[in-house]
Amino acid sequence: MVATDDKFSTQGQSPPFDLCKYLAERQALVEAALEHFLPVTYPEKIYEAMRYSLLAGGKRLRPILCLATCELASGTMEMAMPTACALEMIHTMSLIHDDLPAMDNDDYRRGKLTNHKVYGEDIAILAGDGLLAYAFEIVAQTENVPAERLVQVIARLGRAVSAAGLVGGQVVDLECEGKSDVTIETLNFIHTHKTGALLEACVVCGAIIAGISVTDLQRLSRYAENIGLAFQIVDDVLDITATQEELGKTAGKDLQAQKATYPSLWGLEESKSKAQQLVAAAKAELEPFGESARPLLAIAEFITTRTH
Amino acid sequence: MVATDDKFSTQGQSPPFDLCKYLAERQALVEAALEHFLPVTYPEKIYEAMRYSLLAGGKRLRPILCLATCELASGTMEMAMPTACALEMIHTMSLIHDDLPAMDNDDYRRGKLTNHKVYGEDIAILAGDGLLAYAFEIVAQTENVPAERLVQVIARLGRAVSAAGLVGGQVVDLECEGKSDVTIETLNFIHTHKTGALLEACVVCGAIIAGISVTDLQRLSRYAENIGLAFQIVDDVLDITATQEELGKTAGKDLQAQKATYPSLWGLEESKSKAQQLVAAAKAELEPFGESARPLLAIAEFITTRTH
Repeated sequence: MVATDDKFSTQGQSPPFDLCKYLAERQALVEAALEHFLPVTYPEKIYEAMRYSLLAGGKRLRPILCLATCELASGTMEMAMPTACALEMIHTMSLIHDDLPAMDNDDYRRGKLTNHKVYGEDIAILAGDGLLAYAFEIVAQTENVPAERLVQVIARLGRAVSAAGLVGGQVVDLECEGKSDVTIETLNFIHTHKTGALLEACVVCGAIIAGISVTDLQRLSRYAENIGLAFQIVDDVLDITATQEELGKTAGKDLQAQKATYPSLWGLEESKSKAQQLVAAAKAELEPFGESARPLLAIAEFITTRTH
Repeated sequence: MVATDDKFSTQGQSPPFDLCKYLAERQALVEAALEHFLPVTYPEKIYEAMRYSLLAGGKRLRPILCLATCELASGTMEMAMPTACALEMIHTMSLIHDDLPAMDNDDYRRGKLTNHKVYGEDIAILAGDGLLAYAFEIVAQTENVPAERLVQVIARLGRAVSAAGLVGGQVVDLECEGKSDVTIETLNFIHTHKTGALLEACVVCGAIIAGISVTDLQRLSRYAENIGLAFQIVDDVLDITATQEELGKTAGKDLQAQKATYPSLWGLEESKSKAQQLVAAAKAELEPFGESARPLLAIAEFITTRTH
């Protein structure tokens, strides 16, 4: 409904929503905040290693989702910015550790050498640990947000990363590597945990910071679940259809590693269709929020139209 | 003053303090709480790996310190127990990651094979990540403690683990390996960060949970700094003087790795004497707390008298 070139969706009440401009503006704010939170100090090597991966670009979709739901629920970007940065730090930690030789053994990430290829495995492990711990510190030190909300946010973040979230998803993913008989239930478990849990945390944490009602929080949680799974399906599709240059990482990696993916279970067309259905379901959850949900609507649509 | 066999220290006002009994009782409570917080669920492998290292014994000195300062400041053990367990989870995470081949490459810990020797490097890395994230979740979900105190605790825990704490200390430690010209300042930096920061967090977090005054918190912080450094010096001394059986890990490891230690800079006798001085300074900080500080006094003394 509210794609960047759609002038008819809002019945003339407001100008069309420019997602590109919206994302670019918020991306710049997030970059500045990340830079602010992580200056270089002694021992420089570890700060440089953390900054190398944290400031390596990327769409900053996770922090932007967090800022967006805080604003949707009548909060300010300032209130959500520490949590938004924490989410990006946590995401970066998971990438650094996933890329290690003992895990996915990846040499490139976002078009650059992976952290351990530059700094060594020991520093890469510690850089991940440092980012994870620091993420919780900066959320806990957020100003002008009631502490009752911050502890809720921290509990959700912790759970999203723990064995009940990202770590659990990664473990099952590793167990399934090279297996030809992975079921759709297992694949769903992997993705709702490995990537979905953190995406959901992005969406709900921004709203919790703004003091949203429980009912509205549940709607946003379902929105997040749907876009999270859609995001992963599209990721799998792009791994097959996109080139290495577009992707900024080794393309066709999943195929090489014989990883179970949605296209390998459903085929490419069915996968694309499922992603569309999930995005439609996500958008339906946003209806009660009216105009204030326009960024989230547009982000949902962006997931299925992105090419890298 | 308040050693386990000293009947004269309290001028007849109360029975002598039995540290062994005190530690054993609290250790049992901590074991039960750790077990409660980490049941096995799907995916079992990661929970088993986390439990393998978390429930591998150990003195539980960190959680016991946290419980002790909470009680000293008129709080209950129940209020501090989630944070006490979180501290042990964080400590265990640091051990699992430190033992990895890319770091200290240790095969044994507490007399058992290290985590990666049993579960593989990938699972060991993830087990550490999972324990770290879960630690913050359980602190944030503590009941019957004001959220304002919990966010203070979380900020301190995060800082204690981050590049400004444990991770920073470990990085400098790795940089110094095999170097013959490590200064006492660098060695102090390593230990006040690698082990001292988390020990200080144990002591101050328990007191924050109980709502202690800023002045008293500073006293406890200085107590912790002093016992933290004393603890490390004694650790270095024991690495030379204790046998592998007593230590539960490879003895003489520091010497083999050509690590700078206090005995290598000061010699054994001077190191022991410095540890005694630090313990005396720690005990002096406890004077205003009177009888309520007896466990902390006894723990300080225990550090210099322990043999493993």
